[in-house]
Amino acid sequence: MRSWPTKTLALGGDYNPEQWPRPVWDEDIELMRRANVSFVSLGIFSWSWLEPAKGEYEFEWLDTILDKLHAGGIAVDLATATATPPPWLSAAHPEILPVDVDGHTLWPGSRQTWCPTSPVFREYAVALTRQLATRYHEHPAVAMWHVSNEYACHNLPCYCDECARHFRTWLQRRYPGLEALNDAWGTAFWSQRYTDWGQILPPRRSTTFNNPTHVLDYKRFSSDALLDHMRAERAVLDELSPGVPVTTNFMTLDHFRHLDYSQWTPTVDVVSTDHYLVDTLEHPRAELAYSGDLTRGLAGGAPWMLMEHSTSAVNWQPTNHAKDFGQTIRDALAHVARGADTIGWFQWRQSRAGSEKFHSALVPHAGADSARFREVEELGRIAGRLGELVGSRVESRVAILHDYQAIWAAEGPCMPSSELDALTAAQAIHRALHDRGVTADVVHPSADLTAYALVVVPQLYLVTDEHAAAVAAAAEAGAEVLVTYFSGISDENDHVRLGGYPGAFRDLLGVRVEEFFPLGPDETVALADGTGTWWSEDVTALPGTDVLTTYAAGPLTGRPAVTRRAGTDGAGSAWYVSTLPDDTALGALLDDVLSAAGVEPTVAGLPRGVETTRRRSDEGSWLFLLNHTDAEHTVAATGYDLVADAPVDGSVRLAPGGVAVLRED
Amino acid sequence: MRSWPTKTLALGGDYNPEQWPRPVWDEDIELMRRANVSFVSLGIFSWSWLEPAKGEYEFEWLDTILDKLHAGGIAVDLATATATPPPWLSAAHPEILPVDVDGHTLWPGSRQTWCPTSPVFREYAVALTRQLATRYHEHPAVAMWHVSNEYACHNLPCYCDECARHFRTWLQRRYPGLEALNDAWGTAFWSQRYTDWGQILPPRRSTTFNNPTHVLDYKRFSSDALLDHMRAERAVLDELSPGVPVTTNFMTLDHFRHLDYSQWTPTVDVVSTDHYLVDTLEHPRAELAYSGDLTRGLAGGAPWMLMEHSTSAVNWQPTNHAKDFGQTIRDALAHVARGADTIGWFQWRQSRAGSEKFHSALVPHAGADSARFREVEELGRIAGRLGELVGSRVESRVAILHDYQAIWAAEGPCMPSSELDALTAAQAIHRALHDRGVTADVVHPSADLTAYALVVVPQLYLVTDEHAAAVAAAAEAGAEVLVTYFSGISDENDHVRLGGYPGAFRDLLGVRVEEFFPLGPDETVALADGTGTWWSEDVTALPGTDVLTTYAAGPLTGRPAVTRRAGTDGAGSAWYVSTLPDDTALGALLDDVLSAAGVEPTVAGLPRGVETTRRRSDEGSWLFLLNHTDAEHTVAATGYDLVADAPVDGSVRLAPGGVAVLRED
Amino acid sequence: MRSWPTKTLALGGDYNPEQWPRPVWDEDIELMRRANVSFVSLGIFSWSWLEPAKGEYEFEWLDTILDKLHAGGIAVDLATATATPPPWLSAAHPEILPVDVDGHTLWPGSRQTWCPTSPVFREYAVALTRQLATRYHEHPAVAMWHVSNEYACHNLPCYCDECARHFRTWLQRRYPGLEALNDAWGTAFWSQRYTDWGQILPPRRSTTFNNPTHVLDYKRFSSDALLDHMRAERAVLDELSPGVPVTTNFMTLDHFRHLDYSQWTPTVDVVSTDHYLVDTLEHPRAELAYSGDLTRGLAGGAPWMLMEHSTSAVNWQPTNHAKDFGQTIRDALAHVARGADTIGWFQWRQSRAGSEKFHSALVPHAGADSARFREVEELGRIAGRLGELVGSRVESRVAILHDYQAIWAAEGPCMPSSELDALTAAQAIHRALHDRGVTADVVHPSADLTAYALVVVPQLYLVTDEHAAAVAAAAEAGAEVLVTYFSGISDENDHVRLGGYPGAFRDLLGVRVEEFFPLGPDETVALADGTGTWWSEDVTALPGTDVLTTYAAGPLTGRPAVTRRAGTDGAGSAWYVSTLPDDTALGALLDDVLSAAGVEPTVAGLPRGVETTRRRSDEGSWLFLLNHTDAEHTVAATGYDLVADAPVDGSVRLAPGGVAVLRED
Repeated sequence: MRSWPTKTLALGGDYNPEQWPRPVWDEDIELMRRANVSFVSLGIFSWSWLEPAKGEYEFEWLDTILDKLHAGGIAVDLATATATPPPWLSAAHPEILPVDVDGHTLWPGSRQTWCPTSPVFREYAVALTRQLATRYHEHPAVAMWHVSNEYACHNLPCYCDECARHFRTWLQRRYPGLEALNDAWGTAFWSQRYTDWGQILPPRRSTTFNNPTHVLDYKRFSSDALLDHMRAERAVLDELSPGVPVTTNFMTLDHFRHLDYSQWTPTVDVVSTDHYLVDTLEHPRAELAYSGDLTRGLAGGAPWMLMEHSTSAVNWQPTNHAKDFGQTIRDALAHVARGADTIGWFQWRQSRAGSEKFHSALVPHAGADSARFREVEELGRIAGRLGELVGSRVESRVAILHDYQAIWAAEGPCMPSSELDALTAAQAIHRALHDRGVTADVVHPSADLTAYALVVVPQLYLVTDEHAAAVAAAAEAGAEVLVTYFSGISDENDHVRLGGYPGAFRDLLGVRVEEFFPLGPDETVALADGTGTWWSEDVTALPGTDVLTTYAAGPLTGRPAVTRRAGTDGAGSAWYVSTLPDDTALGALLDDVLSAAGVEPTVAGLPRGVETTRRRSDEGSWLFLLNHTDAEHTVAATGYDLVADAPVDGSVRLAPGGVAVLRED
Repeated sequence: MRSWPTKTLALGGDYNPEQWPRPVWDEDIELMRRANVSFVSLGIFSWSWLEPAKGEYEFEWLDTILDKLHAGGIAVDLATATATPPPWLSAAHPEILPVDVDGHTLWPGSRQTWCPTSPVFREYAVALTRQLATRYHEHPAVAMWHVSNEYACHNLPCYCDECARHFRTWLQRRYPGLEALNDAWGTAFWSQRYTDWGQILPPRRSTTFNNPTHVLDYKRFSSDALLDHMRAERAVLDELSPGVPVTTNFMTLDHFRHLDYSQWTPTVDVVSTDHYLVDTLEHPRAELAYSGDLTRGLAGGAPWMLMEHSTSAVNWQPTNHAKDFGQTIRDALAHVARGADTIGWFQWRQSRAGSEKFHSALVPHAGADSARFREVEELGRIAGRLGELVGSRVESRVAILHDYQAIWAAEGPCMPSSELDALTAAQAIHRALHDRGVTADVVHPSADLTAYALVVVPQLYLVTDEHAAAVAAAAEAGAEVLVTYFSGISDENDHVRLGGYPGAFRDLLGVRVEEFFPLGPDETVALADGTGTWWSEDVTALPGTDVLTTYAAGPLTGRPAVTRRAGTDGAGSAWYVSTLPDDTALGALLDDVLSAAGVEPTVAGLPRGVETTRRRSDEGSWLFLLNHTDAEHTVAATGYDLVADAPVDGSVRLAPGGVAVLRED
Repeated sequence: MRSWPTKTLALGGDYNPEQWPRPVWDEDIELMRRANVSFVSLGIFSWSWLEPAKGEYEFEWLDTILDKLHAGGIAVDLATATATPPPWLSAAHPEILPVDVDGHTLWPGSRQTWCPTSPVFREYAVALTRQLATRYHEHPAVAMWHVSNEYACHNLPCYCDECARHFRTWLQRRYPGLEALNDAWGTAFWSQRYTDWGQILPPRRSTTFNNPTHVLDYKRFSSDALLDHMRAERAVLDELSPGVPVTTNFMTLDHFRHLDYSQWTPTVDVVSTDHYLVDTLEHPRAELAYSGDLTRGLAGGAPWMLMEHSTSAVNWQPTNHAKDFGQTIRDALAHVARGADTIGWFQWRQSRAGSEKFHSALVPHAGADSARFREVEELGRIAGRLGELVGSRVESRVAILHDYQAIWAAEGPCMPSSELDALTAAQAIHRALHDRGVTADVVHPSADLTAYALVVVPQLYLVTDEHAAAVAAAAEAGAEVLVTYFSGISDENDHVRLGGYPGAFRDLLGVRVEEFFPLGPDETVALADGTGTWWSEDVTALPGTDVLTTYAAGPLTGRPAVTRRAGTDGAGSAWYVSTLPDDTALGALLDDVLSAAGVEPTVAGLPRGVETTRRRSDEGSWLFLLNHTDAEHTVAATGYDLVADAPVDGSVRLAPGGVAVLRED
């Protein structure tokens, strides 16, 4: 049986041979070999092709292509093929269709049009999984199972009556009784007290804001409902195909926040994710880096798989920009720099019809005789040389806390600001660290924080007592702790911690906040040394806490903006920043914090726009340098550049858009 | 039995003790006394706490808190508690849920999710009212009944089948027969002729614009349907609790225009309203003043109650800004300056859970040890001193006409401009008067206009013959009359008055308009002495009418923009302004009009940004001065400043954001 | 029997006498005669007035007004009156109501609230048509039948179950079997394979993009469904009223693209359209000209009817601007310049009630004593003099291809850019030609292209093999061919033509494109001689193709932007422009192309903003000159100006906004 490629960086992607006549299949495999493609994901959207009618299966085509791929030396990540039900299923059972918050049924015709709690859908999906696992668990090409697809992408929360029933069951597991639920949700207000479980509904469209804890629990339930579906498919694989690793591709992108992946990682054998650059973001490459660091955090620091990204343009943005020439290679290696050992794309061959026909692919419409495919071939050669670093881990001494449930709570409804994105602070600090050559792990508050020199707590609005204690314990153990505005405000039921903000961190930080003064997107507030954005607070520094910066305008003039409470007995100090400083002021603050933490950059004095990380294993270390600028840069370094396939002695020249990966001596 | 507080300005607010454990209740009453809180509104959203299952009542908690409040000397405005049905009721009777214009059911989970015509909802609401009135009509703490809550806020027009039936009945009362309805609605167009009452539906989502008179009548019906609900609850109170005054809190804010409050005032014993500053408005404080003058107009000039406002931030704006320090006092007194004798807030103690947990309160999350609560205590002391002006009335010699039905008609559909807000002219003129120290009453056209020196008719698009005659009669009686563009265009069925605009006022004004030339938000038109905005018209001045200003650019160049027809035999003159002049030109025009009317400012030569009004009673007069600027200002005045608790001899210094209320000698 | 007016330009419009008392009717006819109104459209929205209950008819009023009109010498375009069902019909049969893509029923109350495939609606509509045809086919006033009204305007695609059934039938006619449909739609992707016709649904709201060929076929079906309805009504007229010409008013405006009128023209005896200027467009007058040239293209170059436009403001734009004085005449003649022989308005007399009461009319609210009506009277006199050109045709040697189905495909979903409007290139080139005094026909690719000196192929994204061959044949026959970016990409099933873009035109143009580089609305790309907007491509010029311009910045620097492949053996050359050049660069390119094609302007050296065309018949030629500027211009010309009713000898002076129509010597 084939194991996952490890002697090379594994390159590959989604492969949809059912879109093409068979002669193309042979050309595909020949071209895959030319491009050093060593795996494909197969069958993701093939349900209607595998089971064209209830219980009638057509496996011949899949048998054939699996054999061909195996003969070509290509490993297969085989899908359970359940991502989208076939038309016959939704025609026979329209009750499987999801319903949106307004009560609109979402009809078939695109993809993933199924309700996560539908017992009918689950029965059919599990049956197909059973067929595939039975037939292919010993096929030598099959190196991994791929359950469903991108659960967070189009499977949004469903508000149907079936989900209402499952939600009640979920609540009955969460709460010891209705009184506990009424207390947790704060139903004393707006006449929402429940006196029977059957009264509870999903938070459907109402006249105004739904109860926020109700909404939060529905987000938790909706994430769990999809996870439950994955577990049902996985149970079949565990039974019938033991030993073959199982994954599903996460969506750790900025704009997919529906699933709490920290709950999902125990259910996958290897963490994989998809990533697509979003041009309309202000900092698309910083988002890529954040996503990589978050994915690595979910993987517990281990290497992970990039299951999908794009060679060039996608097809769902307002204007879908092509990538620059060379960027296909650079983007792939940017993920490797964050810990990916597998690099996949959607998709192998660009479709000529259907919804994704203008999504770029490894083989474009123009064919293999194209600049883009030649770039892929070049990357294939580089991937071979990078085989030596497979299994290594990214170095980091900084943790940035990330908790999807805290994000959900902060996203409202009815918060102090609906214009402030919950990840603004996290991303700004991550980006500022990155600009200083410092790599951070983006981790869940339940991760082991004790090994970090610096723990950043960026707008952790909702925090459990346990997680708050873990942050304090990290400080106690010697880590510097940097907490930003609007953190530690509420508990796991989204009840505000009383007596002054930030309740969960008040003692640690030595501050007390009486009131928030949020700022709109076009507002700023002067600081004694800089400018605050997005937020400000009426802060009092308690005795023993130093005021580092004050507000210099508006109603808060003269009051603390940034504070530091020094640790005693070897404990790290606790820094509080009650606004988001401008880039310069934030950078200066981070310089002080990093200095206190004793954290050095991966490479000192990096030019702006050059990204760096280091991967290390027992066999050595590898330095990544990615030039995202239009200018040439020279960086002091020594080793062997696996991209250029040439030694580097003292300094490496990075062409505009160029990349070097140095095996360090 | 307790009467409403009159020896002090009554301070208080919504009190939701069911959100808190009982030990907090005792602290609440102690803090209320510290802050001179003399009333609370109780039980507004308590239905599910009072009647947790059909016909099962839990009154013990309400008994207890009423007794405690009474012992604390605090009057209670007791709610009928029917604002939001409990979950058990909507679970048992989903037919009570409202349906929006698109056909979406609005589900429970927030508040006020009930259809105004539902007989089921009404039966249950009336039954609860009956229980409360029976149990508490003799409780000594109960000084007032508070029916439902903020009817206009989330009870929007409902489009369900039950409403369709009630609409037909309403129409049968309005029109003598279907022929009259067909004529009124103009169903000769677009094949809309009704031949059976049962064919009539609410103006639900259609392919394009619904018939405008149909839409107008549905707005009238929807306002009446809620009023009918209020009357049903009030009837129970009249029966079981005679002598206790009854109110419901209106929403006289700019963005709540769904109810025609001029129809509601006979149903309340005292006019009360809520008001929240809206940061996103261009002139939020002018909106507050307009709202106060409108509320006073609804109260017939008598003092009124501010039932709710906020100490600081709300939680439903895009960014919810905190108020400046000191602004809590200033905002409260701004309402008193417009005639309020009661000042309430939502809410007493800031919630720790639920949809309004980030709405500010008298006792914030930080507790009583906070700058905001100390400010409330200071206001409590001021309120005590202001007790002497309770019952006095605001002086004004200017009326600005305001008719919700004219606004509804002007809001379309399918008007000359959908970008021109129907209140633009009213608010611009109100603000310009205010800037000149002139206080205006905002009154319904049916009010007695004969006592005013100046009557302003701002974009009164729809006007009945009777109201048009009343304006003419005011001029005849000596008042100056100022009419703006797009007034007097249609009759009560929204039929255009033919033969040249503005049909209803053509003779009074001595002008004839052939065509409208509306301007977009980014357009202006030059005038001979200024700039016109939003609108222009092809005006002909009839013989005897003076042209004061002409258009100076575009197709209307040289034609009249502003005219005046002098009155004879002691009649006032009639001014017509066919565009909205810029602030300077409008100010100059108003100076001329005020001069002709003999109206003097309350205080001459006021600095820009200092607001003033005068209240007067048989016992004396009180001058209000509110400094809304960041600079100190000095104003010539003499008397005793009840805010500073100090005499004023010749001039009063107003700190930035400061307020003075002078008992005049 | 009355024939259509031909001795004068026919002026007229929609006439809705049922809105007015009978004495007004007599005044109407007198005023029509004063204004030289020679036709009216009658009964368009009269169903509920003609058939107030099922099978009960009230024809007396229509008899009366038809007699009066006939006596007044006015021809009648009599409607089948089926545009909007009466309330009794939708009350009895709510299943006739349309359903939108989200599943919302669209309710009665506005207009055209009927599903195009409803057999019930059709039965009633045909029955009414039969009544009218029987009663009036011999009435001497009736000169034309007007079927329904503005089919594209509010009859949008319906997604109800009845439409689903008809869609399946339509598909069964289009495809030989389900396998062919699966192949055409590319259902191999996203698990969309259909195994039974009954599984197919309209492309209703789904979780994300619906299959694009599914969507495209639904647009085709929806256009055909309305056409089928028209045919059903027409069949009755053919049976009962043979010899009377039949029309329906198209909507050839930029923002109405739902119907493929190239399929409709065989079903009308004369092409008629409506046109309304849209102020919010960047180039409203260019849109008018484009619409006229498109309508003429649909009419095969023959004269056509402008069934509706407006004398002044409409009532459905954000701000509805009045027209300048004089513009009523100029706008009417602008349509005549493009080939209209009939000029109609909506409507004769401005309504006093209902949805269109603020839509301007020939007789305004102010009455006939108004500048606007006097302008109409003046136009009446001009129309009489223009009778001599009735029947003449507009000269043009340039064709611009326009295919609604290509537009539908390009409008997505999921295209390289959703921000690029599909008509951007067509309109930019049309406007640039117009600015150079060159008139173009806007024609369907199936038109006879061989007679043109220049054929422009503007973003013809989808093109059939036959249409691509027709373009190549035109070049072969000697025409210059100018193709823009993103043309020839897909076939009739919207399958991408592989091997390099632009597949259908690659050989003709001698280029090969590997990848698109679309630009957003705020992006540009430098060219060697100008600036590119909206789009760019990675172009390779094949041997024998000349590079005229290159990209000068960004990833495409140095690569071809504009190319020309010279024709051999008398063939025209093939020009490719892979971006949309700025106005100057596009103009320079067109100058070269026109020069190569030997196309001269109608009038050389025209001032910017002066529009010109020439109409010609066997009796002579007429030169149109329309001054759209605020300045006076002089143009060299000789003849007799039918507008000024004066001879022109050598030069004609055009006042600001003025028009001349010269009979040339």
